[in-house]
Amino acid sequence: MTGTSLDRHVQRYAQRTSGMRASAIRALFAVANRPEVVSLAGGMPYLRSLPLESLAAEAAALVAQDGLVALQYGSGQGIVELREQICQVMSLEGIKAHPDDVMVTVGSQMALDLTTRIFIDPGDVILAEAPSYVGALGTFHSYQAQVVHVAMDDDGLIPAALVAAIDACRTAGRRVKLLYTIPNFHNPAGVTLADARRAEIAEICRTAGIAVLEDNPYGLLGFDDRTRRAIRADDAENVMYLGSFSKTFAPGLRVGWVLAPHAVREKLVLANEAATLNPPVFNQMLISRYLATFDWQSQIKAYRHTYAERRDTMLAALTDLMPEGTTWTSPDGGFYVWVTLPEGFDASAMLPRAVTARVAYVPGTAFYADGLGTRQLRLSYCFPTPDRITEGIRRLAGVIAGELDVMRTFGTSPLRAVGGPSSPAPDTA
Amino acid sequence: MTGTSLDRHVQRYAQRTSGMRASAIRALFAVANRPEVVSLAGGMPYLRSLPLESLAAEAAALVAQDGLVALQYGSGQGIVELREQICQVMSLEGIKAHPDDVMVTVGSQMALDLTTRIFIDPGDVILAEAPSYVGALGTFHSYQAQVVHVAMDDDGLIPAALVAAIDACRTAGRRVKLLYTIPNFHNPAGVTLADARRAEIAEICRTAGIAVLEDNPYGLLGFDDRTRRAIRADDAENVMYLGSFSKTFAPGLRVGWVLAPHAVREKLVLANEAATLNPPVFNQMLISRYLATFDWQSQIKAYRHTYAERRDTMLAALTDLMPEGTTWTSPDGGFYVWVTLPEGFDASAMLPRAVTARVAYVPGTAFYADGLGTRQLRLSYCFPTPDRITEGIRRLAGVIAGELDVMRTFGTSPLRAVGGPSSPAPDTA
Repeated sequence: MTGTSLDRHVQRYAQRTSGMRASAIRALFAVANRPEVVSLAGGMPYLRSLPLESLAAEAAALVAQDGLVALQYGSGQGIVELREQICQVMSLEGIKAHPDDVMVTVGSQMALDLTTRIFIDPGDVILAEAPSYVGALGTFHSYQAQVVHVAMDDDGLIPAALVAAIDACRTAGRRVKLLYTIPNFHNPAGVTLADARRAEIAEICRTAGIAVLEDNPYGLLGFDDRTRRAIRADDAENVMYLGSFSKTFAPGLRVGWVLAPHAVREKLVLANEAATLNPPVFNQMLISRYLATFDWQSQIKAYRHTYAERRDTMLAALTDLMPEGTTWTSPDGGFYVWVTLPEGFDASAMLPRAVTARVAYVPGTAFYADGLGTRQLRLSYCFPTPDRITEGIRRLAGVIAGELDVMRTFGTSPLRAVGGPSSPAPDTA
Repeated sequence: MTGTSLDRHVQRYAQRTSGMRASAIRALFAVANRPEVVSLAGGMPYLRSLPLESLAAEAAALVAQDGLVALQYGSGQGIVELREQICQVMSLEGIKAHPDDVMVTVGSQMALDLTTRIFIDPGDVILAEAPSYVGALGTFHSYQAQVVHVAMDDDGLIPAALVAAIDACRTAGRRVKLLYTIPNFHNPAGVTLADARRAEIAEICRTAGIAVLEDNPYGLLGFDDRTRRAIRADDAENVMYLGSFSKTFAPGLRVGWVLAPHAVREKLVLANEAATLNPPVFNQMLISRYLATFDWQSQIKAYRHTYAERRDTMLAALTDLMPEGTTWTSPDGGFYVWVTLPEGFDASAMLPRAVTARVAYVPGTAFYADGLGTRQLRLSYCFPTPDRITEGIRRLAGVIAGELDVMRTFGTSPLRAVGGPSSPAPDTA
């Protein structure tokens, strides 16, 4: 961190602050955002498919007709109309919920923050898939949680590995509070939790006295047009469900939500008020109008179509262009492909070379709390056009091939790791 | 709290959560929001003076022209155009600042939350005026800070009392991290820190190694058209300055900011990303357009004129109608009058009677961390029209007079205090 030695406040920070450091990779991402670089790093939805002209009219009507409400303070829990609509959205995943148990948040990131806030004391364990969402790891870290990773396979989180992780923590005398899981179209792993495993995982956690934090921003973005049943649909008491309009509508409004058992929801509202007073009323009313006025399910279908095409393009380019020894996942929805490089590679160390070759990705270590993921990287296909995706993969394959050449000559990689934790700003990840 | 005994999560909460309880008074405020009640409780700005038609057009243009940016993820620090404009706004108060040291937040409440997050370990002391802003006390409480109140007089925080409080904390072995102060048109006390005291207070804190958190949402709302110089204007290294568009423009967009020394600002951005990824881009761009397009200083002047008239109305009604033995402050700006009831009164206990008489206020105990403020209450004149203000004071005076009658007859108040901490939801306060 720049300036630490000159920081007169350095002795005053809270203990939780000591671990907050900007990574060396952040600077690289500033470069990666230049237009000549194909960024396969960000998780930004492709907003060009939104009906902007109609949305503009809707925003104007909202200010002109309801401005005195939309621009005023509101309820810490969020407006009731939107909470009712959120229950309708969740019913697509088999969830039966009452609007009173829903709380609107500033993106589901804030729901993640507040849930962590009310449950986690320093040192408490949160179980999370290996790998897991970089933004969740950052939030957990900011509350001094200990993250223990649990293995996945192509069917998602492995129940036996979950049991083993719980047992190991208990044996070591550690207090496990939460399982954090992204069941659908996992970020970053690109896999989906098999239907048959869902009840089993819920049961394991219930029995062990561990609450489940089900993070589901991508659930409606399945390419086979089949909507998976949420874990929450079969366990209303032990599951906190996080939802978001960021991937199915637009992230710039920062509207997400948490559905929680009633007593937990009461705590969450008090925490929400302490953090923001209330989520922005204007944003909630605009989304409420959008859901009431537009054929939002068709819009989600359009998104699905766009992302499915791009997933196909990326997988085809990987198959065509990647050197032998490189493997990757095949997502059934969502935004991400998880790539494993050949033995001996270091994706963090390779990133500066990739950016020089005008392609960017997120190194795998960003998605682990424990330093694993060296050989992995995350590619996203959500934002670039198919042509750019193919060109990006071509560039990346070139970098990897060049690297392989050097390794064959010298017997090892000449790349040294970039210092610092390799996480970009979470808004790109 | 309802349902605690049925809450299977009750053993799982973090320590910080144990103190989070909804107050009994919350239910009263639900009643107080009915139209037949004159609410002198809320701190809601009077939005009818906003140019809603023009704002509607601006919102539409933003979506239609810049929707792909406004509706997308953004920077954790906030958009640079708005940060530049914020520097211009602050320059009215004598502040010279670089946009790089400004971070945009979800209302200044979020700036308060994040500043507390990076500085406060459980048990650390935050010094705050007696009384202080209920929303700040809630945030400090949620991070397990200990609030130590420092006395004010008609010229605001008393420097000698500040020195004595620091000494007492030090003698007791307590670690003092921050002074939280609202120098202008104090919420709830309605007083303003004298110019001559500002440098002195900054110097006391600098010398004692305590950072200053200057919360200034009302600074541009002085009725004498004189803008006070911020404490931050003369101390860039030891002061964190919190600003807001909620009182000078509109709170429903939830846009505030913090100006901090560079190294602190870096930590704050990491904390902001962990909490929300980024503040809503749409909201930032709309306010940026508003500042660029509208004569916002004239809008603030219009607000000042409205609030000055209402302050005059309230003070006149208090003078005309209040029973002897009741006293109040005379604010030079902002939203609030702080009332002290005669000896023996309990403003919390009186509130149900007041709401029955169709007038609402916030009891003084909400503004203290230590149970003081029993005889005090806060009245706000920002939202009701002058006629309603007079009618509200008439009703309140009737309740107090009735209470005095009973006390004269029985020698003491028959009112019992309502249980629980007497804080309303902070969005009304």
